[in-house]
Amino acid sequence: MMGDSSPKTPLDLVCPIPIQEYPQVLLAHGGGGSLMQQLIQKMFLPSFNNPALEMLGDGALLDRPDGQLAFTTDSYVVHPLFFPGGDIGSMAVNGTVNDLAMCGARPMYLSAGFILEEGLPMETLWRVVRSMADAANKAGVALVTGDTKVVDRGKGDGVFINTAGVGEVVASRPVAPASIRPGDIILVNGDVGRHGIAIMAQREGLAFETTIQSDCAPLAELVLALLDAEIEIHCLRDLTRGGLAAALVEIAEKAQRQINIRESDIPVNQEVQAACEILGFDPIYVANEGRFVAFVRPEHAERALELMRAHPLGASSAIIGQVEDAASGLVTFSSRIGATRVIDLLSGEQLPRIC
Amino acid sequence: MMGDSSPKTPLDLVCPIPIQEYPQVLLAHGGGGSLMQQLIQKMFLPSFNNPALEMLGDGALLDRPDGQLAFTTDSYVVHPLFFPGGDIGSMAVNGTVNDLAMCGARPMYLSAGFILEEGLPMETLWRVVRSMADAANKAGVALVTGDTKVVDRGKGDGVFINTAGVGEVVASRPVAPASIRPGDIILVNGDVGRHGIAIMAQREGLAFETTIQSDCAPLAELVLALLDAEIEIHCLRDLTRGGLAAALVEIAEKAQRQINIRESDIPVNQEVQAACEILGFDPIYVANEGRFVAFVRPEHAERALELMRAHPLGASSAIIGQVEDAASGLVTFSSRIGATRVIDLLSGEQLPRIC
Repeated sequence: MMGDSSPKTPLDLVCPIPIQEYPQVLLAHGGGGSLMQQLIQKMFLPSFNNPALEMLGDGALLDRPDGQLAFTTDSYVVHPLFFPGGDIGSMAVNGTVNDLAMCGARPMYLSAGFILEEGLPMETLWRVVRSMADAANKAGVALVTGDTKVVDRGKGDGVFINTAGVGEVVASRPVAPASIRPGDIILVNGDVGRHGIAIMAQREGLAFETTIQSDCAPLAELVLALLDAEIEIHCLRDLTRGGLAAALVEIAEKAQRQINIRESDIPVNQEVQAACEILGFDPIYVANEGRFVAFVRPEHAERALELMRAHPLGASSAIIGQVEDAASGLVTFSSRIGATRVIDLLSGEQLPRIC
Repeated sequence: MMGDSSPKTPLDLVCPIPIQEYPQVLLAHGGGGSLMQQLIQKMFLPSFNNPALEMLGDGALLDRPDGQLAFTTDSYVVHPLFFPGGDIGSMAVNGTVNDLAMCGARPMYLSAGFILEEGLPMETLWRVVRSMADAANKAGVALVTGDTKVVDRGKGDGVFINTAGVGEVVASRPVAPASIRPGDIILVNGDVGRHGIAIMAQREGLAFETTIQSDCAPLAELVLALLDAEIEIHCLRDLTRGGLAAALVEIAEKAQRQINIRESDIPVNQEVQAACEILGFDPIYVANEGRFVAFVRPEHAERALELMRAHPLGASSAIIGQVEDAASGLVTFSSRIGATRVIDLLSGEQLPRIC
């Protein structure tokens, strides 16, 4: 390799389990015996290398944080496993990192629970693990404890991943729906609906002439930049299942405050808009994996917008609405011509297994 | 109900989701819309009732613990979901509680991630949730954050559950394989192999004349009683997948110490022994869900045994062996007639999906 200075992506690395011997995951890889030990020692430990994980106890021992703890979990069942802009591995890290960030916390530690289907190509598992390791490095979190189960063929779907996360709360005031107040300005960190449309295009093999990539990304750095700058943030929510609409409806109901959004101010990419029109979707209900709303004190809104736009994950940030002086618990969208409609939850998701 | 003082088991309670309307779990129950909200509000919140969960943020906010943190995760894919002595719900709580206890920690908080298969009877989910809630109450832990995903029919197997756990380390010295020393005495808190045989009998519908129940139980109270009594514990390990043998082999390898077990001192129930003989299993490799080994300072062994036997989950506790003054990293079993054999890991588990 001497003289070769071209960057290697981690996926260039060879799968550490001999593929010719174990081309697929077997039930025994989850059985607590020597094959599971091989998987742990050769694949998981080197990928997620850190002292807490290396202890390989029944759990990881962590240093006591300085602040209050935030604790969250999500399972990831996205189909397909790989899609433009991400995969189940990067999602499983970023999604849980983002949930911690939405608590006003600095993500620190993740756990990973794999549920593998017998017959999964070993190479596929390796791609997922490498992607998780890369995402954890980028997000600055350590994967410190884990578990692997294998279920019989036909009783799973390749790979499901659960991650739980522990973080340290850095926000100096409660970041929660109950903290929002009339006049609060609502910002979003970019255009909505990319993740759902990227998955849809990939899944259905649609003949979209689309280059839409998922927005899957770790949001903690951006949120921490706002907190560092002493932006008074009252509430944060990432826009996953159910999209922008579901996040706003839940916050309005929980806070019993009315929220008004100027529909024309919601950033939507043209390709996403076109795809939504073809598919009969409304982009406000489409899932995202790297978008969030922030409710901030009115006097801080312009500064927050500047800070968000200065970050690579917030370049197309926008102010989209505010909290009204009414206790209706409703979300209203006003159109350019002055019409107003009340937004509600869909009964489900337009597109299952989006995350 | 006045005058009715007969104890009600929680399973007597009616499923809070109207069964006639939603007899089965639908994809929409995991879709981020109103059906998922109904499931959360009507089933999960009342069952796991606690202030941190009720916040329903992207994560739970926890009080900062006094000590070092322990953090662990496990996914549960046991088949069948219900078996003599337990079910996937009680296992998902007890298993993670036990992993924390094995770190010398007091279990405090759990997360729960459900992966449900479309078509799962709603009543089945309710039985599992009630069982988890009961187990959490008994173990003294709060389920503070969660997630629900639904996968298409044929892409899962009823219910998979991941739980992650956070606890506070109370052991005053490191409880880990690296801490074991020559002369340490090894205790087990009861007879081994019940869980695996209970599952096997249930799964295969075998015509065993068996009343064997799983040993599924929360071990933290028993472990904390030892720590409270200042028993010097060097290592703890619960005997799950791979059984007693796998736990000992992993500890010996990790510590690079030789462990010797007197085979005749290992408690095995007669029915379990008989079932193992029929099935061709060795009880030392069969999974447990409420058994652990403790490596203690020799001078403390008798007192530890007394304390363990005084606890309902340790009535048949026994001293089974000791750490030798050799750095072989091997586990040897000596028989009554003086023969010695080296124990190794199986390549997998004799019985997949045991936990």
